[in-house]
Parts: sequence; C-alpha cells; structure tokens
Amino acid sequence: MGLDFTDVIDYVGTFAFAISGIRLAAAKQFDWFGAYVVGLVTAIGGGTMRDLLLGVTPFWMSQPSYLVVTGVALVFVMVFRKYVVHMNNTIFIFDAIGLSLFVVVGIERSLDAGFPFWVAITMGMITGSIGSVTRDILINELPLIFRKDIYALACVFGGFVYLGCYKLGAGEVFTEVATALSVILVRIVAVKFHISVPVLKVDDDEDAKES
Amino acid sequence: MGLDFTDVIDYVGTFAFAISGIRLAAAKQFDWFGAYVVGLVTAIGGGTMRDLLLGVTPFWMSQPSYLVVTGVALVFVMVFRKYVVHMNNTIFIFDAIGLSLFVVVGIERSLDAGFPFWVAITMGMITGSIGSVTRDILINELPLIFRKDIYALACVFGGFVYLGCYKLGAGEVFTEVATALSVILVRIVAVKFHISVPVLKVDDDEDAKES
Amino acid sequence: MGLDFTDVIDYVGTFAFAISGIRLAAAKQFDWFGAYVVGLVTAIGGGTMRDLLLGVTPFWMSQPSYLVVTGVALVFVMVFRKYVVHMNNTIFIFDAIGLSLFVVVGIERSLDAGFPFWVAITMGMITGSIGSVTRDILINELPLIFRKDIYALACVFGGFVYLGCYKLGAGEVFTEVATALSVILVRIVAVKFHISVPVLKVDDDEDAKES
Repeated sequence: MGLDFTDVIDYVGTFAFAISGIRLAAAKQFDWFGAYVVGLVTAIGGGTMRDLLLGVTPFWMSQPSYLVVTGVALVFVMVFRKYVVHMNNTIFIFDAIGLSLFVVVGIERSLDAGFPFWVAITMGMITGSIGSVTRDILINELPLIFRKDIYALACVFGGFVYLGCYKLGAGEVFTEVATALSVILVRIVAVKFHISVPVLKVDDDEDAKES
Repeated sequence: MGLDFTDVIDYVGTFAFAISGIRLAAAKQFDWFGAYVVGLVTAIGGGTMRDLLLGVTPFWMSQPSYLVVTGVALVFVMVFRKYVVHMNNTIFIFDAIGLSLFVVVGIERSLDAGFPFWVAITMGMITGSIGSVTRDILINELPLIFRKDIYALACVFGGFVYLGCYKLGAGEVFTEVATALSVILVRIVAVKFHISVPVLKVDDDEDAKES
Repeated sequence: MGLDFTDVIDYVGTFAFAISGIRLAAAKQFDWFGAYVVGLVTAIGGGTMRDLLLGVTPFWMSQPSYLVVTGVALVFVMVFRKYVVHMNNTIFIFDAIGLSLFVVVGIERSLDAGFPFWVAITMGMITGSIGSVTRDILINELPLIFRKDIYALACVFGGFVYLGCYKLGAGEVFTEVATALSVILVRIVAVKFHISVPVLKVDDDEDAKES
C-alpha cells in the first residue's frame, strides 16, 4: 500500500465518517458549527481513543488535514443537501472503505507500539467504531452500531484475517489488502442481506437496575 | 492480601460489573456484541479512565483476562437468562465486593504513581464509578449512581478509611481489608435501608439553560 | 497578567462553570453528590480532555483547589437556591470571564507543549467547551452549545485574535487580554442580540441512519 494511496483512502474514510456525523447532527437541529464538531468526532474519535490508550499523540494533531477534510464534508452537505439524501449507496461504500482502512491502521499502530495481537485487534475495533458511538452519544441516541447490521464485529473479523495472514507468513501489502477487503465484504454482505448480530434477550425486571 | 486472592476478587468484580452492563444493554435491545461491549466498558471503564489520568498504560491492556471474564459473563447471561433475574441479591454482593476492590486498587495505583492522597481518593472513586456512568451513557439513561443509593460516595468513604488507617500506621493488609469492608458495609446498609444522598433541590426556570 | 490575578479569574470561571453543571443536574433530580460530580466535570472536563490529548498530567491533579471551588459552588447553590434563579446575568458574566481565561490557558499550554497554532486554537476551543458538552451528556440532553448562541465558535474566534496578536508582535499580556476580551465580547453580543450559528438544514430521511 503506497503512502499516497493510503492517504487517499484515509481522506475518503474521514470524509464518509464526517458526512454521517454531519447529517445526523443536522437532523437534530444542530447549528453548522455543532454539526462540524459532530462530523469531526465521528471521523477522528476512534483513532483518538486508540492513541490515548496506546499512550501516543493523537494522529490528527500532527497535520491539519483531518480538520480540513471535515470542513469540506460540511460544505459538501450544505451545497448538495438535496442530493446527499439520494447518495446513501455511495456514502455506504465510502464508509466501508474508510472503516476497512481504520481497522488496518488501528492494528498496525498497536503492533508498532509493541502490544500483542489481542490488543491490536481490539484497537482495530476501537478505531473503527468508537467514532460512531461517540457521534450517537452526542446526538443523544442509542449507539446504532450495537443494534443494527454487523459493524464492530466486522472490525474484529478483519483483525482475525490480519492475524491469520501474519501467522501464515503473508507479505505486508497482501495482509493489509486482505484485511481491508474482508471488512468491506462483511459490511456489504451484512447490509445487503440485512444480517445482524442477534439481539440479546433477557428475562428482566425493574430490579435489574438496582446496581 | 495474597496475589491469587486479589486476582479472584478482581475477576468476581469484573464479572459482576459486566453482568450489570450486559443486562441493561439487553433491556435496550442491544445485539449480543453490543451487550458485550457495554459489559466490558462497565467493568473496565473506571480503571481505564484512572490510568489515562495517571498517565500509565490501561491495566486491561497487559493481560486478556478482563476480555475473557466479560465473555464468560455474556455466556452466563445467555445461558441462565431465566434465572439471572432472580439472582439480584447475589449479583449485588458480587458487585459490592468488586467495587470495594476497585476502590483499593484505584487508591494504591495513584499512590504508587506518586500522587497525594486527595488525588488517590478521587481515583478510587473514579475507578469504582466511571464504569457505571459510561454504561448509562451508552444505554442513553441518566446515570443511576448519581440519583439512587450511595455508590460513588461509598468509594469516597472507603478512601477516607484508607487514609485514616495509613495515618494511624496500620499495616498494608489491614488497611486494604478495612477499606474494602467499609465500602461493602456502606453499600449494604444503603441498599438495605434505602438510604440515598438527598436530592439537590433548586428553584429553577428555563433561564438556567442559558449558559 | 499577574499570577494571582489569573488564579482569581480561574476560580471565578471554575465557580461559574460548576454552578451551571450543578443547577442542571439538580433540575434532573440528581442527588447532591451527583450534582457535585456534574459541576466538577463541567468545570474541569475541557481542561482534562486538553491535557490528555497533549499528553500532560491533567491540571487539576496538581492542586485540590478545583475540587474545593466546586464544593463551594455546591454549598452556594444549596444555601442561595431561591436567589440563584435570579442571578442569571451575574452567572453569565462569570461564565464568559471564565470561558475567556480557559481559552487563553488552553492555547498557551498547547504552544508550551510544542504544538503548532492550529492545534492550540483547537485546544482553546476544547478547553472552553468540552466541559459543557460532557455536562449535557451526563444529564442526557443534546449538547446546548451546539444548538444555541455562539459558544464554541467564540473560543475559535478568540484563538484567531491570539494568533493575530502574535503575528503582529504584540506583547504577551496584551495578547492575553485582547484574546480574553474578544471571547467575552462575542459571548455578550451573541446572547444580547440572540445571534446563533445558523441551523444546518438537510433534506434527510430514515436511510441517513444506515451507516
């Protein structure tokens, strides 16, 4: 994966994640600056949490491109607001591509920092999904990814594909591409065929809230 | 407190905290992976926040046992779902025991990192209560521990018991056990006799939301 | 800006921020300890997030004054609860003064840590606004500052004033005072003339929640 190509995918993912945050914030009557912040948090929240946990400087603080891309996403939503609503398929693909890169980046940053694979796979999941969870907290909704489609679990699946490639001695580029494609594939299959993780059923009562 | 015994209590506490998160997530129709994440955050959220504030690597990243124990809790809830609802008393005791250990660990990790006692007591409280607060944020409810029973304040009380023992020159094991028992006792008394911190009453109006 | 004078403003800001958190928590039936925690998070949440991102020890862990000032704010609300509701204008001014200092402190701590100006301006905004956002998350409301008046954007505006003064070679004290006054001015003008950032309008549908 060349540096430039990775950068492009990174921006595509940031753009798609920011769009999702901006749209949902707009639906809640946020002003445009609030929507910008929600878009930014959606895009960089996962990687920020990962870097705080790893004890390294958050990635977005080394170059302003993530703030700029989110700004472009805001202008894009403002200008094409009548069309954005019809672009769900395109945005979904961008989102899946971005997610797949976030997972790869999350895994590799953790391994580079000297952590074992089970931490790296967890960080891949955190990188991919915490942004969306924080977005839903900010707009005061139940986190969507915990109730619909396969999202966080797609990140974990990608993590195991990475681990498998590594154990089999595959090259770095092959491992990265295989991981990314597996995440994208799981997302597409899950959404196309409406496959969700089963809802956890519990016979519960009010007492459950005691502790 | 022997190492092995502390480990057992640690897992008991993690298990009880995870159960509480998983049950409440299930009541909100989370899928099982979402419930697992909520359970995990409930169990490790407080210690993670503490470690981030102290500037040390989050405790759960050094061994996978916390992820495993949470997984066991998830399977437990799935398998015994008809019975879990009748186990509130048992879970409450486990939760109180876990809380008491979390307070002790939070205090000692802070003192070990060179912080003064008032920071350590605060960290004991954060270790014990931030997990539950994050759980309630994730399931989109008002934080329960700020409105019912004595929970966070039990952690603070335990912190002062620790401080008192220390000032009186008590041994380490005695100090730890006294602190833990005081937290457990406060929790049992508060819940058994329905003792809560008084609600803060304010004559307020809409203007309160101005700032 | 002399050290003592800065301290006074810092405590005034902490007090005002804590009051806003305590009042809103009280309106949600929090107990007084819960209200204390919400007040504390409102007051120190922004600076804590900034320090975690910068990789330095959170400012409030070096001296207990912030915990004490928040305690004073709690007692103040309890004792003067019939009058607090009529003190909105005073509290608003305190809040604006505190906000302006938080922005200056946020910018300077970031520059001191070796980060470029765009990071510093972002950190000024984070220092000033994350506390209020966390407060609203804890009381389970949509973040107010993203929907009403000009708040986070006032912090950004102050950041650019700081940058402008710096580029023009102004002295440190002049730069700090000009930055602080610009933040206060923007807040007063925005609230007095009911100026808000426009709401972001998007033609949206349920499908927007797909990703």
